[in-house]
Amino acid sequence: MLGKLLENVRAKAPLIHNITNYVTVNDCANILLACGASPIMADDCGEVEEITALCDGLNINIGTLNARTIPAMELAGRRANALGRPVLLDPVGAGASALRTGTAASLLKTVRFAAIRGNVSEIKALCGAGGATKGVDADLSDRVTEENLDQALAFAQAFSRETGAVVVMTGAIDIVADGRRAYLCRNGDPMMSRVTGTGCMLSAMTTAYLAANPGQALEACLAAVCAMGLCGEIARERVRAADGGNARYRAELLDAVYRLSGDALEAGAQYQIS
Amino acid sequence: MLGKLLENVRAKAPLIHNITNYVTVNDCANILLACGASPIMADDCGEVEEITALCDGLNINIGTLNARTIPAMELAGRRANALGRPVLLDPVGAGASALRTGTAASLLKTVRFAAIRGNVSEIKALCGAGGATKGVDADLSDRVTEENLDQALAFAQAFSRETGAVVVMTGAIDIVADGRRAYLCRNGDPMMSRVTGTGCMLSAMTTAYLAANPGQALEACLAAVCAMGLCGEIARERVRAADGGNARYRAELLDAVYRLSGDALEAGAQYQIS
Amino acid sequence: MLGKLLENVRAKAPLIHNITNYVTVNDCANILLACGASPIMADDCGEVEEITALCDGLNINIGTLNARTIPAMELAGRRANALGRPVLLDPVGAGASALRTGTAASLLKTVRFAAIRGNVSEIKALCGAGGATKGVDADLSDRVTEENLDQALAFAQAFSRETGAVVVMTGAIDIVADGRRAYLCRNGDPMMSRVTGTGCMLSAMTTAYLAANPGQALEACLAAVCAMGLCGEIARERVRAADGGNARYRAELLDAVYRLSGDALEAGAQYQIS
Repeated sequence: MLGKLLENVRAKAPLIHNITNYVTVNDCANILLACGASPIMADDCGEVEEITALCDGLNINIGTLNARTIPAMELAGRRANALGRPVLLDPVGAGASALRTGTAASLLKTVRFAAIRGNVSEIKALCGAGGATKGVDADLSDRVTEENLDQALAFAQAFSRETGAVVVMTGAIDIVADGRRAYLCRNGDPMMSRVTGTGCMLSAMTTAYLAANPGQALEACLAAVCAMGLCGEIARERVRAADGGNARYRAELLDAVYRLSGDALEAGAQYQIS
Repeated sequence: MLGKLLENVRAKAPLIHNITNYVTVNDCANILLACGASPIMADDCGEVEEITALCDGLNINIGTLNARTIPAMELAGRRANALGRPVLLDPVGAGASALRTGTAASLLKTVRFAAIRGNVSEIKALCGAGGATKGVDADLSDRVTEENLDQALAFAQAFSRETGAVVVMTGAIDIVADGRRAYLCRNGDPMMSRVTGTGCMLSAMTTAYLAANPGQALEACLAAVCAMGLCGEIARERVRAADGGNARYRAELLDAVYRLSGDALEAGAQYQIS
Repeated sequence: MLGKLLENVRAKAPLIHNITNYVTVNDCANILLACGASPIMADDCGEVEEITALCDGLNINIGTLNARTIPAMELAGRRANALGRPVLLDPVGAGASALRTGTAASLLKTVRFAAIRGNVSEIKALCGAGGATKGVDADLSDRVTEENLDQALAFAQAFSRETGAVVVMTGAIDIVADGRRAYLCRNGDPMMSRVTGTGCMLSAMTTAYLAANPGQALEACLAAVCAMGLCGEIARERVRAADGGNARYRAELLDAVYRLSGDALEAGAQYQIS
């Protein structure tokens, strides 16, 4: 199944509109190209609706948001909704400031999201569940482990029912849930957290998977999550062989996405239905 | 001839002011350093005129433009004109939104450009010729092929006569034209389109070539186009040997620019006068 | 001594708030991760105080500053001061425009900096000493050489006494000075100046060293400067072996930071007390 979802991205080459932070924006563009999609970035209120209308999906990422870009996110989100295009929310740093938490909460009221992807702290902040956010990393007490897995799953599903979005909660174990079903994914490598923007990149790529696989939102998100994690594993092997660090790792991660075939994803994906 | 134009960049180390998008800005800075120039980025109305006055050339790129940066583009452009410094326009995504098309059109009225570099769709949008822009990539129907080459050449020359700028229309075949003469360049590799910002990078580098070679605008543009395409070919060989993807390709492309000598450019450039 | 300062960064993993330019922001985030710290970027007045309050240090970099971010720098700086967190100023391009020089000067009045890091031209601009700034590179006449070393040292120390900050003046020879003591560092490689943002990256990393080593500001700055220079040397060897250019160099530099141990820093640091 997952292999076909990946191949659909390469076959359809969806154009993805990104309103995203300036820290990791270049990597988001390049991972979209690596997976077979095309990126366009635009964040001015004067053009976001037109740009979204040209696109197959919209990725809204609230890192480095500001007074100028917040209304653009809402405008683009509403337009994408009106046109039936999938919209993804990456609530980077929700919980770290009232501006981020409030903006994400406000977007949840005005825009219908196909998916929401964040770490546990960020997702909890959106629920008002009071997770302590340490910058853009998940707080230690908010990590998903084998011990709190059932609790985390129930939480993700409840949030999915509340929002109507597929909830993608990433960490050592990734959870992909809608209101009825949930998957666990155990692909990935700890070194992914030593590169800035692996979460942002996954959100961009997930938007492409959603756009290329209409009607299969849960599976599309799972495929993107497994693909990213598997590429993280492949990158680790190559970095080790080259005695590299996180810069090499970043490049190897993108290159693994570039080379990943549907068959390789099928063979390497480690997921289970919960 | 082209080799000497390249060597002039390394010898004069022109300082280039860039008002450019935040997606590919880092690559623009690094390709300027790779080719022997120096970059400075500044986009606030409060300083762009002073910064431009320090510089040898100005590169205006309208990707991720916004209400704050548009007047800065005009201010800087006018100042560069007044000082006789070459100004290049990269109309990223012209045709994709009224804001981009309108901004580019407005700049064409208020600023005198030494060169305009874009893909066929973007250039057509500026002519009001009605090209359908798919994001920042040329629409299929807008690709320059052997079949429509004569038409594309005539179009580029007409646009050059209209604007007074050298027109650089890049694609599978690149066209470099002024009102009287035109060159075709067949260097390049399809993988260049799988890295975000190769067009932006070429625009930045072309500005450096213009700045270092006064009075030879057409040839300076041709040299930059051939150099970029040739480096794209070199990068492809090295990526293939390393089993890489688009991240590795990006690095190899920049590194090829860094290493490229005048002699290597002379030997590898594939161009003809039309 | 230096090795222990490095290890403190890895052990404490300080969270660093960066208000920085969009050209090199991604590299700043990745070098923070490489050295063992964590980055967060936020520049909107609506959140910078909250973000700074979550963090262990604040890095203010005035490259691509604009009307929107200038007040955010002041707000964040004051808050960090109130909380006793170290604040570093990187006056990128001071001297190149009245906006940059004036903003840096204004920040020096309203914020107490633990350290100021720039090249000689930038530091001189802040003193009103009239250095001619060529973009973001040190003017030739402003390079620190064996001949003008005593003068440069006296200048750095005077500026440190004026501001209360450790002054880090980088170039072929790096100077790290407070009002009473000064160190020279001779690590580094000329190729560092062929990659955009090596100065910005050093500033980000220095902020992490300051945050992880309270009460040892002078030594923390020295350790960061030596670490960066040593990694520049390591990167040069690897780039040469790979026949690379400045893109490869950038990656090797970050990877060297990622791998650098306290022992390796002790063994490789080339500094002397002046």
